[in-house]
Amino acid sequence: MFDSLTIVGVGLISGSFSLGLKDRGLVKHVIGVSRTPASLEKALELGLIDEALPLEEAVKKSDLIYVAIPVDVTVPMVRKIMDMIGDGQIVADAGSTKQALCDSLADHPMRKNFVATHPMWGTEYSGPEAAVRNAFAGRACVICGKEDSDPAAVAKIEHIYRLLGMHMVYMNASDHDMHAAYISHISHITSFALANTVLEKEKEESAIFELAGGGFESTVRLAKSNPSMWLPIFMQNREHVLDVLNEHISQLRKFKSCLEKENYEYLQELMENANKIKKILR
Amino acid sequence: MFDSLTIVGVGLISGSFSLGLKDRGLVKHVIGVSRTPASLEKALELGLIDEALPLEEAVKKSDLIYVAIPVDVTVPMVRKIMDMIGDGQIVADAGSTKQALCDSLADHPMRKNFVATHPMWGTEYSGPEAAVRNAFAGRACVICGKEDSDPAAVAKIEHIYRLLGMHMVYMNASDHDMHAAYISHISHITSFALANTVLEKEKEESAIFELAGGGFESTVRLAKSNPSMWLPIFMQNREHVLDVLNEHISQLRKFKSCLEKENYEYLQELMENANKIKKILR
Repeated sequence: MFDSLTIVGVGLISGSFSLGLKDRGLVKHVIGVSRTPASLEKALELGLIDEALPLEEAVKKSDLIYVAIPVDVTVPMVRKIMDMIGDGQIVADAGSTKQALCDSLADHPMRKNFVATHPMWGTEYSGPEAAVRNAFAGRACVICGKEDSDPAAVAKIEHIYRLLGMHMVYMNASDHDMHAAYISHISHITSFALANTVLEKEKEESAIFELAGGGFESTVRLAKSNPSMWLPIFMQNREHVLDVLNEHISQLRKFKSCLEKENYEYLQELMENANKIKKILR
Repeated sequence: MFDSLTIVGVGLISGSFSLGLKDRGLVKHVIGVSRTPASLEKALELGLIDEALPLEEAVKKSDLIYVAIPVDVTVPMVRKIMDMIGDGQIVADAGSTKQALCDSLADHPMRKNFVATHPMWGTEYSGPEAAVRNAFAGRACVICGKEDSDPAAVAKIEHIYRLLGMHMVYMNASDHDMHAAYISHISHITSFALANTVLEKEKEESAIFELAGGGFESTVRLAKSNPSMWLPIFMQNREHVLDVLNEHISQLRKFKSCLEKENYEYLQELMENANKIKKILR
């Protein structure tokens, strides 16, 4: 489908994306771009990329340029790439926030060649070693501001994601960022905070972790996530994240108040309400 | 090893315990006791038990009586069973709290025949259908107040848990309850509260859940847990749970304050500190 793909950033998302396309014969040649030579070497060794090149050379040779780097550097990077491309080339990103990026590209003469995507898949690991085969399957991929992109470009990107097993969801960038705060960003903050809660105690009580079972692991595993990826997400999505965080703290205060006042009837109700999540989660 | 085992409560823990013992030839005959006839039928059908009997008859016929019911009813139930047993019989429980139970048995003439255990394993599901083969493996099992139990009884119980793949951890009931609050009970409260946070928003925005990825699922899956099991745990362990909940809310407030004040240096530090959990979790 594509002769040559450039991935900007060679990590969890772009590496898994490249493997998915290679495995399905959707791309002949993959070029990696990164400011970290060790990551490029690792990506070559793992077969995530066929070649490492400087940005300008890579873009010149590619039909599709896929950007998956921290969201703060995504904005200038995508603009820079958009300044380099010609008519037949498509640029897409995989960032966890969309408003700042879409705003920054609104006036760009090549805007139609850009497709804003957020595949709702990831793990708590990062770097080229974190890339896995058969990623993305069964999850949603959000496409933002579809109407600002060339329909043919959107169709190609959707086709790829569908072959990777994703289903498409369309929304504007602002709605995306609000939703992402609720179903992804807050989960990371609660995990980080829960890890800190228990690590604080562990200073005195080294036995705590010996007891950790599956429930604990499940709720804190996101606390292993890379701060240099997550800080820019929280910065760009600050207002939505603060809204959800305030709501979450007030929900926790309800549990606290029930316990303090021994209002167990209401505590039971709070848990029964939370059980409704069963209907929603697979 | 045992001719006859009685499980009181036929659910996730006791059912998985029974399957583990049967699979390893550690018990010839398993009797189920429950106030819910439908659960007994299901347990018979699933092969978790060989026979359903009223408590008194079951206890009379058994070498080992294993109690795995909500912690509030565990206390009177274990006392009642202790009043029925003779010298050769062992009683053990699997409850998530230990202080109230151990306190209540301190003066019992048969105290030596009781072993207080907490296998640190579970899932968010409950009832006989939730029982699984090969449960417990790789996790810790806490034994509380070992010195109050007959060494031969403790040895038998430890032997079983070890054959199920668990390693033993010893502590007094009060330390157990504090540790359990940190590495299990708080995870459930944060999950319940996170589910309520997002369900609250979902009233307006039905699209939210379409986007849910693995991270969200992982942090809220415990919100599916059974309130009638967890309410008594929170009631019995109220003080420790409140301590941890206060600490957790104050950790979340640090994230909130960083975002409000745009103090991103400290936000980065908070996440880096949380990353230390990597050293501890497998």
